[in-house]
Amino acid sequence: MKTDSVAMTSLAGERKQGTVCIFGTGDFGRSLGLRLLQAGYEVVFGSRDPKNSALVPKGSKVMTHTEAAQMAQVIFIAVQRDHYDFLTSLTPALEGKVLVDISNNLKRGQFPQSNAEYLSSLVPGASVVKGFNTVSAWALQSGALDASRQVLVCGDDPKAKQAVVDIAHSLGLTVQDRGSLRAAGELEDIPLQLFPNWRLPLWIATGLTAFFFFYLLIRDVIYSYVVDGKDMSFRIMISLANKVFPIVSLIMLALCYLPSILAAILQLYNGTKYKRFPDWLDRWMLCRKQLGLVALALAFLHVLYTLVIPIRYYVRYKAAAGTISQIKDNVTRPFDNTMAWRGDSYYSLGILGFGLYVLLGITSLPSVSNALNWREFRFVQSKLGHVTLLLCTAHALLYGWDKFLKPYKFWMPPGYMLSLVVPCVVLVSKLILIMPCVDRTVTRIRQGWERPTKGTALSNGTTQQPLMA
Amino acid sequence: MKTDSVAMTSLAGERKQGTVCIFGTGDFGRSLGLRLLQAGYEVVFGSRDPKNSALVPKGSKVMTHTEAAQMAQVIFIAVQRDHYDFLTSLTPALEGKVLVDISNNLKRGQFPQSNAEYLSSLVPGASVVKGFNTVSAWALQSGALDASRQVLVCGDDPKAKQAVVDIAHSLGLTVQDRGSLRAAGELEDIPLQLFPNWRLPLWIATGLTAFFFFYLLIRDVIYSYVVDGKDMSFRIMISLANKVFPIVSLIMLALCYLPSILAAILQLYNGTKYKRFPDWLDRWMLCRKQLGLVALALAFLHVLYTLVIPIRYYVRYKAAAGTISQIKDNVTRPFDNTMAWRGDSYYSLGILGFGLYVLLGITSLPSVSNALNWREFRFVQSKLGHVTLLLCTAHALLYGWDKFLKPYKFWMPPGYMLSLVVPCVVLVSKLILIMPCVDRTVTRIRQGWERPTKGTALSNGTTQQPLMA
Amino acid sequence: MKTDSVAMTSLAGERKQGTVCIFGTGDFGRSLGLRLLQAGYEVVFGSRDPKNSALVPKGSKVMTHTEAAQMAQVIFIAVQRDHYDFLTSLTPALEGKVLVDISNNLKRGQFPQSNAEYLSSLVPGASVVKGFNTVSAWALQSGALDASRQVLVCGDDPKAKQAVVDIAHSLGLTVQDRGSLRAAGELEDIPLQLFPNWRLPLWIATGLTAFFFFYLLIRDVIYSYVVDGKDMSFRIMISLANKVFPIVSLIMLALCYLPSILAAILQLYNGTKYKRFPDWLDRWMLCRKQLGLVALALAFLHVLYTLVIPIRYYVRYKAAAGTISQIKDNVTRPFDNTMAWRGDSYYSLGILGFGLYVLLGITSLPSVSNALNWREFRFVQSKLGHVTLLLCTAHALLYGWDKFLKPYKFWMPPGYMLSLVVPCVVLVSKLILIMPCVDRTVTRIRQGWERPTKGTALSNGTTQQPLMA
Repeated sequence: MKTDSVAMTSLAGERKQGTVCIFGTGDFGRSLGLRLLQAGYEVVFGSRDPKNSALVPKGSKVMTHTEAAQMAQVIFIAVQRDHYDFLTSLTPALEGKVLVDISNNLKRGQFPQSNAEYLSSLVPGASVVKGFNTVSAWALQSGALDASRQVLVCGDDPKAKQAVVDIAHSLGLTVQDRGSLRAAGELEDIPLQLFPNWRLPLWIATGLTAFFFFYLLIRDVIYSYVVDGKDMSFRIMISLANKVFPIVSLIMLALCYLPSILAAILQLYNGTKYKRFPDWLDRWMLCRKQLGLVALALAFLHVLYTLVIPIRYYVRYKAAAGTISQIKDNVTRPFDNTMAWRGDSYYSLGILGFGLYVLLGITSLPSVSNALNWREFRFVQSKLGHVTLLLCTAHALLYGWDKFLKPYKFWMPPGYMLSLVVPCVVLVSKLILIMPCVDRTVTRIRQGWERPTKGTALSNGTTQQPLMA
Repeated sequence: MKTDSVAMTSLAGERKQGTVCIFGTGDFGRSLGLRLLQAGYEVVFGSRDPKNSALVPKGSKVMTHTEAAQMAQVIFIAVQRDHYDFLTSLTPALEGKVLVDISNNLKRGQFPQSNAEYLSSLVPGASVVKGFNTVSAWALQSGALDASRQVLVCGDDPKAKQAVVDIAHSLGLTVQDRGSLRAAGELEDIPLQLFPNWRLPLWIATGLTAFFFFYLLIRDVIYSYVVDGKDMSFRIMISLANKVFPIVSLIMLALCYLPSILAAILQLYNGTKYKRFPDWLDRWMLCRKQLGLVALALAFLHVLYTLVIPIRYYVRYKAAAGTISQIKDNVTRPFDNTMAWRGDSYYSLGILGFGLYVLLGITSLPSVSNALNWREFRFVQSKLGHVTLLLCTAHALLYGWDKFLKPYKFWMPPGYMLSLVVPCVVLVSKLILIMPCVDRTVTRIRQGWERPTKGTALSNGTTQQPLMA
Repeated sequence: MKTDSVAMTSLAGERKQGTVCIFGTGDFGRSLGLRLLQAGYEVVFGSRDPKNSALVPKGSKVMTHTEAAQMAQVIFIAVQRDHYDFLTSLTPALEGKVLVDISNNLKRGQFPQSNAEYLSSLVPGASVVKGFNTVSAWALQSGALDASRQVLVCGDDPKAKQAVVDIAHSLGLTVQDRGSLRAAGELEDIPLQLFPNWRLPLWIATGLTAFFFFYLLIRDVIYSYVVDGKDMSFRIMISLANKVFPIVSLIMLALCYLPSILAAILQLYNGTKYKRFPDWLDRWMLCRKQLGLVALALAFLHVLYTLVIPIRYYVRYKAAAGTISQIKDNVTRPFDNTMAWRGDSYYSLGILGFGLYVLLGITSLPSVSNALNWREFRFVQSKLGHVTLLLCTAHALLYGWDKFLKPYKFWMPPGYMLSLVVPCVVLVSKLILIMPCVDRTVTRIRQGWERPTKGTALSNGTTQQPLMA
């Protein structure tokens, strides 16, 4: 009889939580068993060699697989996928049971079929639920669930899924239902990921940083050494860093807004939104948030590097030396009103730009962006985002001021000039796109309108569906 | 037969997700259909003109409304409210179906009755569920659900609601149940909102900023020009901004704590908490968080504006000029211990106040405040909030120091003096309210005690319910 | 008949929300009643003295307990635990009802049995659900649910729990299921908590701050006064604070990483991970996040205190005095390249360390850490955490530079030297632990391997389970 099974007990509303079975006495199995015991479940382990399973938590029982399967409605399969085949011999005992596949793979796409679907094909009479694979054994054991205390489950049988959800709830975990068992492959990939969306932005940041570092090293340090014979190498730590970071940050901020401009141009060119974007554009659009956040981190460093300037030995030395030379030469440099206006405007634009940038960063926090509706999110990320880009670009332009006209060292233009190319392209394109005549067409296309094209019979219902191709 | 309907399938636990019907082949309908297909559903579109519906996603079918309705248990109504009346003719086909109203309006309160309730009255035999209206077509299509991936649903029939919840889960969306269909109007308003709670605080911030900007422009720039003939206009960018921002920030921080003081005074005056506050006070109390966050943003700008001071050309020029004049005049200004104490205390109080202020801001993040219990939240927002106000007010008082006594320019007192009025009122009132004798009465009233009033028979059970009036 | 009860209504899918009964007309009862009325429920109050219950919300009815219980399936028990015994006399009327225990205690562990379990033992025929106790009456009444709008429920009967969940949803609240009624004691403790995990870190921070404040007060201020007769007391506000904060911050950052090193050493020593850590280590490990965040707050203050340095009167005075003395003595101090390198490196390391530190802080936000998988969370908190510690320690070492060799004042070594002890111990230990030979053993142990010990028969299945002892 299975009267003490979890699902049944829950429905019957008895005080006792019922029995859960775990196949496998490895680390995860034991940690899970311990946690289940603490939550009031009876736990039986199924093992090949029940006599020698010394390490199962006290209070649980160890039996053969068949015996253990008899005891419970829900069975956690805590064995490697490679060993799943022994389950085929247990088919009668597993009939109608809920099998929870908690396995993970060592690398992505290791097997053509997800572990859970493979399990389901091995034991077709059981209901397979994928779940708990994103939770670590250590987290289960210590109770200190700092990272995701969320269990993702998927499965085809709602009742089976509910039984697993109930167990997760009893263990103090939250649950997110990810749909049918087809999602299992996706769930199995999750624990293998290491910031997949951050890779491209971080590579771009690293690449640009390295390029501009060497570019400015040549221009600012090596040039001085070669031409003037002066050792300015101490500038590497702050002066150079404080040029590289804002340059890369500005370019990356512009790169956040470039793909949507390219998308609008493509849509205008195609006359429809039902044509897929090229893959590279799709990937680019999906990592815009990460691009922006990496750029924000660099902007943050730029702010700190700027603010320590007056404490630096070099700067204090220079200031004193300047004053001393003024006195020795007995000249008084007059106050330059333009310099004051320019410098202050430059700082002010930078501060306002950074302030807005931080705001964009805050609205990217999951809990904040979840609290926004679509219109609000678009307003912040698109409207305020472009204003941020505008302010930061103006900040860089004012920094340049009249240096644009000065002769280049080694024929290399100063770094900030290079940093202005992408932002200016983005801002000018955006300006064109928001002109009423252009904007109207883009809006119509985005609402589903299509420009009639030659050679396409509109009544032809099957040939014109490029989106699904 | 409807054996392949969603609800049925879910319960039967079949591998196939079942069929979903969508009325309307507009943008949202097609995007939703595509997403449903990707999640493994069969999709049928109901259309007026099935022959000419060229754009439906590949794999879906287009039929007449009646035919399509036969195919599925759940029907998404992706047509404008204006066209709902055609549904009355389909009443027999829609009997017992789940109709999902996904419509939005163009402006708030466009119709006296919510779209979903109107739909329900048109097809009384069907179970109407409001939902998916807060999700954008673009988000559904691209899968890049940056903004809310949360579907809000409401409806009167739990089973119908569950069927819609299941679909949302299959699409990888999270669901929040908002109760009965009466909430539909509220849900329809959500996508139209653009930061409704932020409007009043932003207006207050804009108004105060404009006022203080012109006030200080007259006092600091125009006065210099008129009286001394000096052009100090360059001060606008930083010096002026760095006076306006902290002034407005401090006033707005105080405005966060003023309403609860007014509320306590009103409760003391009325002798009961069961008397509604005036509307303006209610509205004020509901936007305190936003008031505080706008003030924090201004304080953040104030910090940055302050920290760039020593890099400014004007400041460096002044420092050098001061040193030069000391040398030329051959005087040595003695070190002023009081100045050192005063300046350092002033900065220190400002830093500590800002630190606490940032802490208040962090606890306002939804995910953080959700992790706090009521007692912790009150501790941070009320206790630490008042300490923050105290520190910031003391910071402003120390900034003023003895300037309070100096003659006013144009009979206009300096800006920081004006900024101190509201904070001091709040702090003094709070001090009175936390005195044991007053505090005891307020606490009793807040626990439900009422001061007996003349002319009210306590045994009279119907006349004394002002809260519900 | 109970046909108008909530649970029934929900299942029947009627438009009407049904009737809810509330025992007790206190503050919470009335607030809840008002909210239920607003959400469309009929509300009946059960009272000892129905004639004199003047304050119930308009639209609700007051009856005797028995009469009220007849009217609804769900009954909220809004009376103190001390008065629960009257419910025993109502046993027949409460048979099969859902009783919602919303009570809280005044202090933790006030009663050996949780209120809800006590209630359940009093009325065994009813299904008791614990819930709503974490929501405040004020929050229910005002609708301004700033703090947790989450209702935590637990109970043994899933159907009863579902009825309560439905009501919570109708009131616009979210629900977290906390499992069986055994969790009730935990739920009752929640509203009594005031940052339990923050106490130890805050005590450590306070203790260390006080110690270093007095230590440095003696060293920097009193020493000057006693030995040189100079009054440097003005240094307390910024100079001293800016030494104490970074010292305490660095020590606390190191204290975050010390316990996992101790744990690894213990595991290596024991040769197993299945031996419980001592209690103090467990508690230490559980508050690492809070330790780190307090240290981050202090680091943030350190940054601000550092950045205001050049605006300080004392610093500006010193700079001018230095320049003046150079001119008077007619010497020109040469530019010291080493000083420039050292100073800039020191600032640069500090900035990068602080940047990473802020990143660690951001990933500690609940919504961010929930979005990370286990591998990502470990990467950030462990790998990046140790890099942060390394950068900050190097920052402090460079600050010291050659001051290590200078004679001590009063035989007291400078503060930063003391601050380096724990970080260096942690970093060196970590270096040893990540050496391949050591790392391999630790990894094996953490995967469940145990070092065979003398005197333990492996086939003995019951004696070797220290974890569950």
